[in-house]
Amino acid sequence: MNSIDSSTGAASSGDAPLQVRDIGSFHVGGHMVSLTGMPLRQRVSTAQGAVHPIDPNGEMVIGQMYVQYVKLAQPRSRHPLLLWHGGGMSGVNWETTPDGRPGWQMFFLRAGFDVFVSDAVERGRASWAPYPEIYPEAPYFRTAREAWEETFRFGPSGSWHIDPALRRHHAAQRFPVAQMEAFMNQFVPRWGCNDALTQHAYDALIGRLDSSIVLTHSQGGNFGLNAALNAPDRVKAVIALEPSGAPDPALRDPAALRGIPHLFVWGDFLTQHAFWVNSLPNVRRWYESLIAAGVDAQWIDLPARGIAGNSHALMADDNSDQIAAVVLDWMRERKLIG
Amino acid sequence: MNSIDSSTGAASSGDAPLQVRDIGSFHVGGHMVSLTGMPLRQRVSTAQGAVHPIDPNGEMVIGQMYVQYVKLAQPRSRHPLLLWHGGGMSGVNWETTPDGRPGWQMFFLRAGFDVFVSDAVERGRASWAPYPEIYPEAPYFRTAREAWEETFRFGPSGSWHIDPALRRHHAAQRFPVAQMEAFMNQFVPRWGCNDALTQHAYDALIGRLDSSIVLTHSQGGNFGLNAALNAPDRVKAVIALEPSGAPDPALRDPAALRGIPHLFVWGDFLTQHAFWVNSLPNVRRWYESLIAAGVDAQWIDLPARGIAGNSHALMADDNSDQIAAVVLDWMRERKLIG
Repeated sequence: MNSIDSSTGAASSGDAPLQVRDIGSFHVGGHMVSLTGMPLRQRVSTAQGAVHPIDPNGEMVIGQMYVQYVKLAQPRSRHPLLLWHGGGMSGVNWETTPDGRPGWQMFFLRAGFDVFVSDAVERGRASWAPYPEIYPEAPYFRTAREAWEETFRFGPSGSWHIDPALRRHHAAQRFPVAQMEAFMNQFVPRWGCNDALTQHAYDALIGRLDSSIVLTHSQGGNFGLNAALNAPDRVKAVIALEPSGAPDPALRDPAALRGIPHLFVWGDFLTQHAFWVNSLPNVRRWYESLIAAGVDAQWIDLPARGIAGNSHALMADDNSDQIAAVVLDWMRERKLIG
Repeated sequence: MNSIDSSTGAASSGDAPLQVRDIGSFHVGGHMVSLTGMPLRQRVSTAQGAVHPIDPNGEMVIGQMYVQYVKLAQPRSRHPLLLWHGGGMSGVNWETTPDGRPGWQMFFLRAGFDVFVSDAVERGRASWAPYPEIYPEAPYFRTAREAWEETFRFGPSGSWHIDPALRRHHAAQRFPVAQMEAFMNQFVPRWGCNDALTQHAYDALIGRLDSSIVLTHSQGGNFGLNAALNAPDRVKAVIALEPSGAPDPALRDPAALRGIPHLFVWGDFLTQHAFWVNSLPNVRRWYESLIAAGVDAQWIDLPARGIAGNSHALMADDNSDQIAAVVLDWMRERKLIG
């Protein structure tokens, strides 16, 4: 039961039922604030509903993060696996892929982990706060072009088109480009001003659990790498899929991370996109500081392993199970799961 | 296994594992739009990340709704149960209660339903769209006072206070008032302009499933009652917890709903809060039109049954399992579950 094909990592068809002990959720990291001085409004809350006045002044919670867990009846790892999404995204990234395959949430449940999927501060079920009253600036809304040509590296500059028939993509691209609209459904607005609130909430999550393995994507990487520095007694491993940032070795000492294995995983086309050309050196510098400090850190360049064509959306690409299996093998080698 | 105590409806402690066939998610109802004419911005995406220009103009998807499902290995109902939250809330309402008990998602999974929890357009994992470019107005952020004194009927007018020790609440209140901050964590911004987009997405969800039972809360009620009118061949029952609105019998003919049982469930303190005094008559009018049309409709006033003290947050109150059992019994009487 719950078999994993060792060659592809794919959960086999005809899987036995997942034995689930509990499904639930909670929020961490928020605090109450009071808004004052804003004018009254009038509204109708629902069709055929009554008109009633709205006073926007008063107390609300901000800075909270949402965490949903699925706990197994008999987990095969002592440490829950925390899945932390990237910027402008939510925990949905880890669920069903845009082309309808099981995502990494299910992969790692079937592999034997209790899995915690979070929506970080400002997005998804974490909610967000008024601006400019609480957040100092307006959010950014991801455009399809930015996602396609820059962040997710589906195609080169100028290759996005609103008409699917006229879109171009990198040769051998592993992202299911025909499902771009389904992927766009997952985009959520983001701010550029909430890193401190977000780190605080992630640290609160780590503090709530006895131990955990942190698996991050993109913007989540910097939060995960810092979370390990902030709680080296609780974080048992950090797996960073294409982190867009990392701690600065001039400011943070990696010595405390000895005994906490780190894995960095990178896809294809990185040299063809300015954002990644500019972002990667800071991450590499942190990786090298980990190595210099004697930390068990590994840098996996997937194309160098013969796994070509992966986009930035490694967990959504058509070989997402293969990438997950690379991660799972790395964890098995470190006895993080039986 | 998966035993339900028939007197309280509570899942018993020491439950056998839930036998889960699949956990996943999808979006429905969205469409692509193009934004033009907006000025460029500059941003840093992550700490230690590179500065890069942002062009907010381009394509994005709006109007999508998020749906997460948990499917059982052996469901005991032929119809999945859809849980539709109220205004200013998300699907989180149906998960763990603010005081940490299993919510209705788990209750109805253990009762034998495949359960689909959605985040409607504009909130949670459904994302939201720029205003005033797409949505014509700014959102409303729920304040603690509005929730406490008006919508959720925790206490009378003037009873909210930022200091928990100074808050007052209705005598015999069933909401776990000591956990108000945890409940506030669940609040999300809402708009007053998205009813048509939201109904479209709910109708798309109904259309994607062969059949379903729709269980709604508050603002979700009007959408559920209309969804049944829009697809009477697919909706097998509507359960509306304290709907804040309902269709207008002068505009919609309830005759098509014969054969689709309807349940309305109401808590306590309704006559003490102006919003509910003003909202309830429109719902009662629709209920009476259902009865007149020969629809199997039931109106349950919980205090009249001896179940006193329930707030508007019926699924979060300390007797939430008892209320769920009332709903489950009603479904069993109608052979909606074996």
